[in-house]
Amino acid sequence: MTCAIVSSGALDMADPAALGAEEAHHLRDVLRVRRGERLLLTDGEGRVREASVRDVSRAGVSLCDFEPIRTLPRPTARATLLVCIAKPARMDWLLEKACELGAERIVPVLSERVVARQKPGETPDRWRRILDSALRQCGGGWATALAPVSSWSDALSEIQGIDGPTFVGSLAPGALPLGDAIADHATHLASGGRCGWLVGPEGDFSPRELESVLALPSAVPVTLGTRILRVETAAVCGLSAILSASLTSVGGIAAATAATAATARTSK
Amino acid sequence: MTCAIVSSGALDMADPAALGAEEAHHLRDVLRVRRGERLLLTDGEGRVREASVRDVSRAGVSLCDFEPIRTLPRPTARATLLVCIAKPARMDWLLEKACELGAERIVPVLSERVVARQKPGETPDRWRRILDSALRQCGGGWATALAPVSSWSDALSEIQGIDGPTFVGSLAPGALPLGDAIADHATHLASGGRCGWLVGPEGDFSPRELESVLALPSAVPVTLGTRILRVETAAVCGLSAILSASLTSVGGIAAATAATAATARTSK
Repeated sequence: MTCAIVSSGALDMADPAALGAEEAHHLRDVLRVRRGERLLLTDGEGRVREASVRDVSRAGVSLCDFEPIRTLPRPTARATLLVCIAKPARMDWLLEKACELGAERIVPVLSERVVARQKPGETPDRWRRILDSALRQCGGGWATALAPVSSWSDALSEIQGIDGPTFVGSLAPGALPLGDAIADHATHLASGGRCGWLVGPEGDFSPRELESVLALPSAVPVTLGTRILRVETAAVCGLSAILSASLTSVGGIAAATAATAATARTSK
Repeated sequence: MTCAIVSSGALDMADPAALGAEEAHHLRDVLRVRRGERLLLTDGEGRVREASVRDVSRAGVSLCDFEPIRTLPRPTARATLLVCIAKPARMDWLLEKACELGAERIVPVLSERVVARQKPGETPDRWRRILDSALRQCGGGWATALAPVSSWSDALSEIQGIDGPTFVGSLAPGALPLGDAIADHATHLASGGRCGWLVGPEGDFSPRELESVLALPSAVPVTLGTRILRVETAAVCGLSAILSASLTSVGGIAAATAATAATARTSK
């Protein structure tokens, strides 16, 4: 079913004029919806309701025949992707995929070796639209939040605010293989705990940056193997591993035994 | 270090004329390598050796100063990605990512609902070049094999030839959450066993196709959660989960305890 994003208030009120200009444009001009077509409205905060298209015109797209609101369970995985800004085409793909994979929040980071035109504090419209488009496409009901472009120190603060581990993609010695790091936190991830996934830029972190982030108590350096992954590949790889760790029907048991394995490993 | 692909024979012989026309073009015209620059040659079968650029001309790029051959360990993860052909831009991205994530083999599949111009038996040059390019980029040393475009029955045969599970992305009832499916086969995956990951097309499998693949003894239906993932996202999500399961330093212990959890789950 075609999906459209509306405000929580408009969703509550079953407002025939719920659709803003951007949604109306997408439905009318891109998808060419017709009178009577069913839509799934979402407020991006887990609440959805079906409605029908009442009228399509230059003025907008109006709605009718609202079903009751349904609440979708919050996804178990609650990952914040902190990603050093990549080249434009790759950022576009990355944002779309991160939303599809259920990232809770994306923090675009300007690290020392990033080559980008964005400045700290900006929230590029293009990126916002890509996330909205991905939300409509995958019908998840829970939007991926987009933080303003962050400086390195903003990123460190963001990590300190996460009540859980932040996995740091790193070639530093002592980095855990990804599978082990995920297993170490299996219980936390499978029970809805938050986590971070920090991905460095094409030119990697500077030594000073790596030192500053690994000094944070919640930082967990991980390696994705011997291959060099592009920024967007590393981003989706980590998000997928986190998603997979949360997609478990007996999170308790599997997580407990994985935790036992982790204990066995550290006591070796 | 810049990477170039050569034949095994040329690698063995430290052949100054090892670089074929396509590699020479890439190095000379795209990367603009200079005399004296160091290269990493690979035969795509785990063997690499360094060499220097001796000469760059219209005729080609010749080599000198060969280091001894090194053998890179075969990646633990041995995944065959069977993917129903997606739209061109998405296939391009998918192929690149699958190579980066270490897929051993990619089988492009023409299922009933695929809309594509390829015919069974074809090996599109463009796809071959994308995989070569990704191999050069990530310096892994192990190429991702590209099977000819396959019919549905070819795909079923391919799956039957895999000595291990084939995870099937499916919305069928009874599909295991991805994390559980991976955990069930943790020992196998962490010790270099082969597996398959079958991803359906945008329009999903037909009921008949789903029935035929789920009838295979090695098929494991899995769900990636409630969100609808695009073909390329589902492809990389599964490959990432498989890669993560193989990136473990104590594969034995973690795998054994995960297997215990799986047994506990099935005996509930």
